[in-house]
Amino acid sequence: MDTNVQRSGRIETVMQAIRSRIASRSLVAGARLPSVRAFARAMQVSVSTVVEAYERLAAEGLIRSRPGSGFFVAAPLAPFSLVDIGPRLERDIDPLWVSRQSLESGADVLKPGCGWLPPEWLPQAALRRALRSLGRADDAVLTDYSSPLGLPGLRQLLARRLADHGLSVGPDAIMLTESGTHAIDLICRFFLEPGDCVLVDDPCYFNFHALLRAHRAKIVSVPYLADGPDLAAFAAILETHRPRLYITNSGVHNPTGASLSAVNAHRVLTLADRAGLTIVEDDIFADFEDVASARLSAFDGLNRVVQIGSFSKTLSASMRCGYVAARPDWIEGLSDLKIATSFGGGQLAAAMVLAVLTDGGYRKYLEGLKTRLASARQKAAKDLAGLGLVPWLLPKAGLFLWCEMPEGVDSADLARQCLTDGVILAPGNVFSLSQNAGRFMRFNVAQMDDPKVCASLKARLPRKG
Amino acid sequence: MDTNVQRSGRIETVMQAIRSRIASRSLVAGARLPSVRAFARAMQVSVSTVVEAYERLAAEGLIRSRPGSGFFVAAPLAPFSLVDIGPRLERDIDPLWVSRQSLESGADVLKPGCGWLPPEWLPQAALRRALRSLGRADDAVLTDYSSPLGLPGLRQLLARRLADHGLSVGPDAIMLTESGTHAIDLICRFFLEPGDCVLVDDPCYFNFHALLRAHRAKIVSVPYLADGPDLAAFAAILETHRPRLYITNSGVHNPTGASLSAVNAHRVLTLADRAGLTIVEDDIFADFEDVASARLSAFDGLNRVVQIGSFSKTLSASMRCGYVAARPDWIEGLSDLKIATSFGGGQLAAAMVLAVLTDGGYRKYLEGLKTRLASARQKAAKDLAGLGLVPWLLPKAGLFLWCEMPEGVDSADLARQCLTDGVILAPGNVFSLSQNAGRFMRFNVAQMDDPKVCASLKARLPRKG
Repeated sequence: MDTNVQRSGRIETVMQAIRSRIASRSLVAGARLPSVRAFARAMQVSVSTVVEAYERLAAEGLIRSRPGSGFFVAAPLAPFSLVDIGPRLERDIDPLWVSRQSLESGADVLKPGCGWLPPEWLPQAALRRALRSLGRADDAVLTDYSSPLGLPGLRQLLARRLADHGLSVGPDAIMLTESGTHAIDLICRFFLEPGDCVLVDDPCYFNFHALLRAHRAKIVSVPYLADGPDLAAFAAILETHRPRLYITNSGVHNPTGASLSAVNAHRVLTLADRAGLTIVEDDIFADFEDVASARLSAFDGLNRVVQIGSFSKTLSASMRCGYVAARPDWIEGLSDLKIATSFGGGQLAAAMVLAVLTDGGYRKYLEGLKTRLASARQKAAKDLAGLGLVPWLLPKAGLFLWCEMPEGVDSADLARQCLTDGVILAPGNVFSLSQNAGRFMRFNVAQMDDPKVCASLKARLPRKG
Repeated sequence: MDTNVQRSGRIETVMQAIRSRIASRSLVAGARLPSVRAFARAMQVSVSTVVEAYERLAAEGLIRSRPGSGFFVAAPLAPFSLVDIGPRLERDIDPLWVSRQSLESGADVLKPGCGWLPPEWLPQAALRRALRSLGRADDAVLTDYSSPLGLPGLRQLLARRLADHGLSVGPDAIMLTESGTHAIDLICRFFLEPGDCVLVDDPCYFNFHALLRAHRAKIVSVPYLADGPDLAAFAAILETHRPRLYITNSGVHNPTGASLSAVNAHRVLTLADRAGLTIVEDDIFADFEDVASARLSAFDGLNRVVQIGSFSKTLSASMRCGYVAARPDWIEGLSDLKIATSFGGGQLAAAMVLAVLTDGGYRKYLEGLKTRLASARQKAAKDLAGLGLVPWLLPKAGLFLWCEMPEGVDSADLARQCLTDGVILAPGNVFSLSQNAGRFMRFNVAQMDDPKVCASLKARLPRKG
């Protein structure tokens, strides 16, 4: 005969089994618990025992019932924490940690690990001219919301720029956003449901990981080679994981500085077509290129590729302005989501950007910037090579060098040590879903003028033979 | 004996049953299909028939399989459409439609239905002074990202303003956002999982509906009375629906202009405490008040209440800047989400806002604005009453009058007709989840200077007597 004590014991056993799965993170916040029936079978207890155990865990607040959908792991005190989602990384190589370090630290800290240019490299004079000219703008520009798609003049200018890259679209295929990241965020909202699979490059821009975790996406990654993703792996992943989106850079790949070749662009698109995959091409480094490399969006004509960009890299990160270029039917849905989640954009940032882009000096500034970056890349590559840090490739454009550490050096260790010298680095595994980039480090050549950067690296690296 | 033909017919029948449920919207995009077993029982076919039918529908792209979770209705061509979620409303009273109309229309259209002041009511001179002074700012202000929480000077000033409202917090309890809506969006990301229940007022600011639909929340509403939510209904809803959040305005309620009384604020908080409910207090109309009314956030001391605000109403909607005030442990999680989904904020908008708020003229401007609004409210109330449109109450502050139409007049009908005269109105059901506000209309008294507004209303309303 079954006693109450025996039954209590079984209920407690089931509760304990769930608790330990949550503690070990094999069930994470938001995850659905096994169905009552399945778990009863697995634990060899009755369904009513599991029902009672789940009810008690729900009363404790550890899990939550959602009528008709089952039971889910409740969120911890901080209800939704990015830190709690995804693989548990050391804080030093957590993508958000690097973002925070770079954003929080003052002017006294050196940031060869950050992803932007120093203020004095940017077109200060043109920005100040733009501010003065806005001081004389119409009242409405200073105070009104913008239209849902954003300032028409800037969208027209963007359409012309896209045409220069071989992508012929009208301004109705372009929507302004607050930033490039905001653009990708809206795209994720539009395309993804929680649990959907998204493919990124390995390595890739680290904030893609944080952004996709915020969307509760399942992330998979494909090795990135010198001219694009590893196509065999790409094909296999499309087959196995059926990702909904692939997010990538074509022009200047972050963090490697690699460029997608035309032949690989074509093959990626062919595979994407076959699998019904939508591609998000993050083109924020476009203006760094001398000769435009292959663009998935241009090859595809905005059929299954969405392009995003912003002006934070070559103009200013202080005035927030990015864009999405996509099929007009998608732009319609994206703009509904933009209104719902941030209402109208502002006109001021877009008007500033338009003023600077149409300022006669912008093209000349860009030419100077590219020359300056080319020599900074050369100098940094030489300095780093002298320390035994070898660039994986020599990029044609941009601000990054992706360097391999000497044998036996872990880049997260090195970053941790240099931080005590006031030098913020970006260790490889921050960019790597597979965590296979522990021997790599991304350097921003525009942030290496100060000899203290190399001095810190030299002091912290093991002495050569 | 079962023939292949018979089996094919049964599979087709099951497929057709699912197709028609999707077509009739009894299964919407993202909805989970009935389990294979349950549907086999319901259709009186074998499990394998349903499995095969589901597989074929998945191959057609109409539904999608998610391993371990079952089958879901695939998104239509436009993968996630706000228009497809929630009750199907006439386009004229769809919240997004009113937002779009107001944001898209040019200066030639009259907008008594919009929610903001005309450009000439806003502090143009102070804004122009701020632009000029920014033209002389440090390089970094013009080009750098801001710190994760945003410009320290503005957060300190906001902390002092909150202290004036009886809420004593440090700047670490305040995070800047791109807008008030962006602040609420981050809060929803932090607290909600898809399917969670959120409580709003009925009527409430219409974009809350669109925002919550974007979060796939289940929305419930509580009738809003002249001094706060209907407390009996509020208590019953907490009991029945256990909402995760309650989003409301305390100072000047949108659209009614009502204010929360101190006694109701206390009762709402007591009920919220008991139910473990988190409250989002949207305080964007704070600067319109002469005498501050009760604030849930001040009574509660930011324990379970989060306050948000922005400067779009009294300063400018063109430079995007809002804020969240919340417990520092929540601010930490919110700032992670902000970095992940929009990276750093810009400094420029925050610096502009700070410059205007610390401009000697701001307080004087506000005094003038409040006087001007008070007389505009009086004049509009009189004009509208002359047309048989009676304000539900006479608000103490703000720009809105919530008016009842004459017997037999449907406000959506009236809005549709006035639109042909170039007058954009905001019919009551846009604000009402229950769709019980068809006799009401929200008027923005600052947008009624032009006699064409009343002329259009007069021409379109049925003649009296």
